[in-house]
Amino acid sequence: MSASPSLRKVFAKKRALITGGMGFIGSNLARALVRLGAEVTIVDSLIPEYGGNLRNLAGIDRDVCVNISDVRDRHSLPVFVRGQHFLFNLAGQTSHMDSMTDPETDLEINARSQLSILEACRNHNPGIRIVFASTRQIYGKPDYLPVDENHPLRPVDVNGINKLAGESYHLLYDHVHGIRSTVLRLTNTIGPRMRVRDARQTFLGIWIKNLLEKKPIEVWGGAQLRDFTYVDDAVEAFLLAAARPEAVGEVFNVGGGPPVSLGALAELLVSANGGGKFVVKNFPADRKKIDIGGFYADDRKLRSALGWGPRTSLRVALEKTLAFYRKELPHYA
Amino acid sequence: MSASPSLRKVFAKKRALITGGMGFIGSNLARALVRLGAEVTIVDSLIPEYGGNLRNLAGIDRDVCVNISDVRDRHSLPVFVRGQHFLFNLAGQTSHMDSMTDPETDLEINARSQLSILEACRNHNPGIRIVFASTRQIYGKPDYLPVDENHPLRPVDVNGINKLAGESYHLLYDHVHGIRSTVLRLTNTIGPRMRVRDARQTFLGIWIKNLLEKKPIEVWGGAQLRDFTYVDDAVEAFLLAAARPEAVGEVFNVGGGPPVSLGALAELLVSANGGGKFVVKNFPADRKKIDIGGFYADDRKLRSALGWGPRTSLRVALEKTLAFYRKELPHYA
Repeated sequence: MSASPSLRKVFAKKRALITGGMGFIGSNLARALVRLGAEVTIVDSLIPEYGGNLRNLAGIDRDVCVNISDVRDRHSLPVFVRGQHFLFNLAGQTSHMDSMTDPETDLEINARSQLSILEACRNHNPGIRIVFASTRQIYGKPDYLPVDENHPLRPVDVNGINKLAGESYHLLYDHVHGIRSTVLRLTNTIGPRMRVRDARQTFLGIWIKNLLEKKPIEVWGGAQLRDFTYVDDAVEAFLLAAARPEAVGEVFNVGGGPPVSLGALAELLVSANGGGKFVVKNFPADRKKIDIGGFYADDRKLRSALGWGPRTSLRVALEKTLAFYRKELPHYA
Repeated sequence: MSASPSLRKVFAKKRALITGGMGFIGSNLARALVRLGAEVTIVDSLIPEYGGNLRNLAGIDRDVCVNISDVRDRHSLPVFVRGQHFLFNLAGQTSHMDSMTDPETDLEINARSQLSILEACRNHNPGIRIVFASTRQIYGKPDYLPVDENHPLRPVDVNGINKLAGESYHLLYDHVHGIRSTVLRLTNTIGPRMRVRDARQTFLGIWIKNLLEKKPIEVWGGAQLRDFTYVDDAVEAFLLAAARPEAVGEVFNVGGGPPVSLGALAELLVSANGGGKFVVKNFPADRKKIDIGGFYADDRKLRSALGWGPRTSLRVALEKTLAFYRKELPHYA
């Protein structure tokens, strides 16, 4: 992503807090903000099952202020939010399956902690500007495709219910308490620094790991349509959302290029890698119960309101991601 | 309410747990279940700001098993749910204003504890039959009137967000884990044993108290339409929802008679009382921000699916409520 002069104007010498800042999207956002001249503070719990990884800050670790801290620790939050101009609120539990086996932990992180963060802002820094990372999961099984922001919200798993609560608190604190917030509903984000150890963040992570380790990819189902956002494009959406006054109080889908079936994606990934195999399997029963079927986002609102547009094609996104993990896999696998 | 023979067949000698069973609706439900021959266990925290009141069990206190216990205490829940045929899950924080000043307590009770209750059922009594008390508050400001069950869910306060999460968990545990649940979305329920000490449960409580204490009623706004359910009719909805297999996994609005403006309601109440005064005032600013405007429920689904219908007119409901508090006010004010 190019560091546009207008974004530099907005963020240079400004203080920005990133929760989940050692995670996949958070760390890429931190890199972009450092490039734009911002003073970046990171809060991340580094819980092994989640997205945080010290390696994600390689090269910028001396340019950011890092706190290994959990957003569930409500007493630490006032200190973190005081004096910040921006809060990029990305800390979250992302695994749908984990939310079903341990629902209270998901609630603590994705709902209760969000309320604590907003209360800290209300009491200690009501002028802060927030961008919250929400998820397409809150829509549930689509009634129609592509899914726009007015689609009914009917989450099909505990993670979706709690993320919806977390998103709703942000909009409520914006409307009622004037804490300026923007919500971005993310679909599958991919790119360097994503979790590849397992499928907790995205199934594509484990696909890439298996491919690079010369193991076959397992494609469940195969016909479902999904859309993908390259991480630099997602980062640009966060920056634009924070920078633009017209984004205050708004919800935006962040989409990407045209949707692709999981089968076609597997073929594309194998081709981008120059080799590899995949096998198509039936959906496991426990996952089928909470699967949302085909999904792709209508992101026209983000495009027209903020001038956002994805710059990286799916093929190039996969190539860049594979190139990163060919070098970096030992730090992530 | 008449103890219908078919309901007697369903509930006689069956074990029923009521959370919030010393509250307004819970205690009236307990009375009905005792009459139907059920073995009733009550869990209630008796927190002074909430609806629980020992006096609500006067006359049946030796027919029910009472636990002064808080649903937030997750370790007590498995003991309570084990061996129960029915769970009427009514424990909740009901004040919209309190949810805005102390959002985390509202979340703990209306969301987190609901997850703990459902986890206790999943792990210790998956065959239990649940009816959950939800609220019209989750709809937010209506797009159209009357509001049916398909109306978008856009809660305008923390209480609404957390009740929506609590309701969603119930439907999820029904669909995914097979814990049979029915959701009732209540509007303004009125009648004997409602909280009249303040407006935390319903504004009508404080109206009745003021009227009986010869003080003027304060009507805020006055033009908003609202609908009211007499508590015996609400209790019948809970019993039918628990009794009928076709209610499993479903959501029902519980309405009442035709809607009435708050101004007309004040006139009707003064008339039913045979005297009294009311003054119309502007809406206080902090309440206006979370007010939903006019609301009345479309309850045709409940009527057609379960044969429910309100038996008590608003005028008679007010007369019965006034008669109750003329005697009982010292125990409630």
